[in-house]
Amino acid sequence: MIYADNAATTKMSETATQTMLNVLNAHWGNPSSLYSFGQDAKEVLEGARKDIADVIGAQPGEIIFTSGGSEADNQAIRSAAYLGRKKGKTHIISSAFEHHAVLHTLEALEKEGFEVTLLPVHENGIVLPEEVCEAVREDTCLVSIMYANNEIGTIQRIREIGSILRMRGVLFHVDAVQAVGHIPVNVRNDNIDLLSASAHKFHGPKGVGFLYAKRGVMLTNLIEGGAQERGKRAGTENVAGIAAMAAALKEANGKMAENAARLTKMRDRLIRGLREIPHSALNGDAEQRLPGNVSFCFEGIEGESLLLLLDDKGICASSGSACTSGSLDPSHVLLAIGRVHDVAHGSLRLSLAEDITEADVDYIIQTVKEVVTYLRSFSPVWRDLVSGKTKFIL
Amino acid sequence: MIYADNAATTKMSETATQTMLNVLNAHWGNPSSLYSFGQDAKEVLEGARKDIADVIGAQPGEIIFTSGGSEADNQAIRSAAYLGRKKGKTHIISSAFEHHAVLHTLEALEKEGFEVTLLPVHENGIVLPEEVCEAVREDTCLVSIMYANNEIGTIQRIREIGSILRMRGVLFHVDAVQAVGHIPVNVRNDNIDLLSASAHKFHGPKGVGFLYAKRGVMLTNLIEGGAQERGKRAGTENVAGIAAMAAALKEANGKMAENAARLTKMRDRLIRGLREIPHSALNGDAEQRLPGNVSFCFEGIEGESLLLLLDDKGICASSGSACTSGSLDPSHVLLAIGRVHDVAHGSLRLSLAEDITEADVDYIIQTVKEVVTYLRSFSPVWRDLVSGKTKFIL
Repeated sequence: MIYADNAATTKMSETATQTMLNVLNAHWGNPSSLYSFGQDAKEVLEGARKDIADVIGAQPGEIIFTSGGSEADNQAIRSAAYLGRKKGKTHIISSAFEHHAVLHTLEALEKEGFEVTLLPVHENGIVLPEEVCEAVREDTCLVSIMYANNEIGTIQRIREIGSILRMRGVLFHVDAVQAVGHIPVNVRNDNIDLLSASAHKFHGPKGVGFLYAKRGVMLTNLIEGGAQERGKRAGTENVAGIAAMAAALKEANGKMAENAARLTKMRDRLIRGLREIPHSALNGDAEQRLPGNVSFCFEGIEGESLLLLLDDKGICASSGSACTSGSLDPSHVLLAIGRVHDVAHGSLRLSLAEDITEADVDYIIQTVKEVVTYLRSFSPVWRDLVSGKTKFIL
Repeated sequence: MIYADNAATTKMSETATQTMLNVLNAHWGNPSSLYSFGQDAKEVLEGARKDIADVIGAQPGEIIFTSGGSEADNQAIRSAAYLGRKKGKTHIISSAFEHHAVLHTLEALEKEGFEVTLLPVHENGIVLPEEVCEAVREDTCLVSIMYANNEIGTIQRIREIGSILRMRGVLFHVDAVQAVGHIPVNVRNDNIDLLSASAHKFHGPKGVGFLYAKRGVMLTNLIEGGAQERGKRAGTENVAGIAAMAAALKEANGKMAENAARLTKMRDRLIRGLREIPHSALNGDAEQRLPGNVSFCFEGIEGESLLLLLDDKGICASSGSACTSGSLDPSHVLLAIGRVHDVAHGSLRLSLAEDITEADVDYIIQTVKEVVTYLRSFSPVWRDLVSGKTKFIL
């Protein structure tokens, strides 16, 4: 099996697994308990908090542990929105191709009276800082832009946007779920006020994530109850999962340059190979993209059939986000970069892990070429295109 | 070390740990992914859902996985409250000694215009079904009563309360975090509409729990985003944690009668021993309590000092809930059963695991006796009591 869907989830690293097991075996106390065995668990927890804060340039007191990226996104956005409302500011800016954890939270806030502006992301999948600047109003309380897109992998100009917003006094939330552990993220340098991350996207466990909130940015609880996480997130902390997340992040961060260089080479080899398929197109900018992300559209085919046939050939890939699979609607991300419905339906995302080999990449290229040709051979849409009845777009 | 704080958290069982490891190694795909490796993870997930549903007498489609008991409590209560509001019903009934995940959610709802009645729990720590019945009004949308109290271990007359509420057409939420896996809980027989549980209270992992919602009871999302959990709880599912939770619950359920019999014997031995300490009292009903729960108040001492000295002697215990440790306020549970502040401060909770031995119990008794005597020897409060300056309460 060639697993090329690391944007959906990753395999836990050996280090992360061993860290988790060690905590489960030897440090399984409740970190809120007063006795030394509980305080020992608290030390593990606080050690993880410091390690994570160090990696992203934050202070430990600015990190809240959550059950994952979606929870962190929800809490960050609601917190900033409610802080804004207290000052009479109810305008929020985001982009059209954010993750649903952001977009659906914004939709919920619209029902509560907030006004949301979704910026375009253009053909290359990049939000323009100058357009963010122009969209900011007197009553803007929050801008939420993802660091790197989960489907097409484009990396945003976060530092520039952050710099503009810092000057304008507007809170900046960054969904960095796809970025943390893969490309350098530093909340201080990047002028970020709120940042969400998820462990299972960087070889940590599922069900764990964190929210960075700059000192002074008061969080609103999604989960009320005990006094855990400075009273901002109730519930006994998942100490083993959190420690494993910290171990995975330290490991990913330590090897980041090396991994990125290797992955970029593999990614570009894969892109070159797939571009040989006629009437295909890379989605998103070719340079400003995650080292492991390859996203294509192939005219005249259905992405779902493509995935199932690739699966038969031992390749795990996706058409877009795993979260929305099963839905018949085309990806909102691909629509946002201007792909028409039919083209957006023929999409393929390959997100590579660090252990991918050239042989794997070549096998993927060869297999995708064969499968696309096969699918086109009995596609009525393709027949119409070839006969000139309809026009090629790609 | 004798770990006697299993109401705070438990050690994961070997079965649960092995299940988790197996999923992390062999079934780590994203259950939302279409390819067979993703669908394999989905099978694990749905197998766990069925196992859990079977144990509590629910249908698999009535189980939503959460990050723990607190999240489940929050979601259950908000869901029922908002369902009620749609029909103009904004009155909620609960009890004075619920977990803070319930009480703090109710406080938040009061700010949104809901009216909350907290029933008394009386000296024995039991809510009277007839008092629930009397408190129900035309505009009551929800009653939330915990199955067993986390501090004093008293077991409520859930089935009777549920039966009354079913007749009155009022939704019934039960925080069963301390009960599930320890005493029989069956949502059908007990007439429960919403139930919360947490894996780490029954030898499963921390950071995982579930919410049962009877078919037809529409949930409100706390976390918006992807379409996981029938669209009611976004975020990639913690498949390994969920599978481990199911394994732990099946195991606990299979051994429940045997465990409970053994624990009850140990509990009663411990209670008999501690009752020999003068001016002490068991908190909560002696019969209607969890098999492993022992909760005492000792006059003239500070619970915190007691815990620290017990820790020195290798005994892990608590004064009440781990979630509120660090707070100087006396336990709201002990105040609810009528303990005055000074007495409530001298509390000790011992919650036993299934592997506790008679020798362990005897060691605990002997050590608590010594430590209480020692602490009283230089307590000014005790001196005043002994000299008759103040009056003994216990």
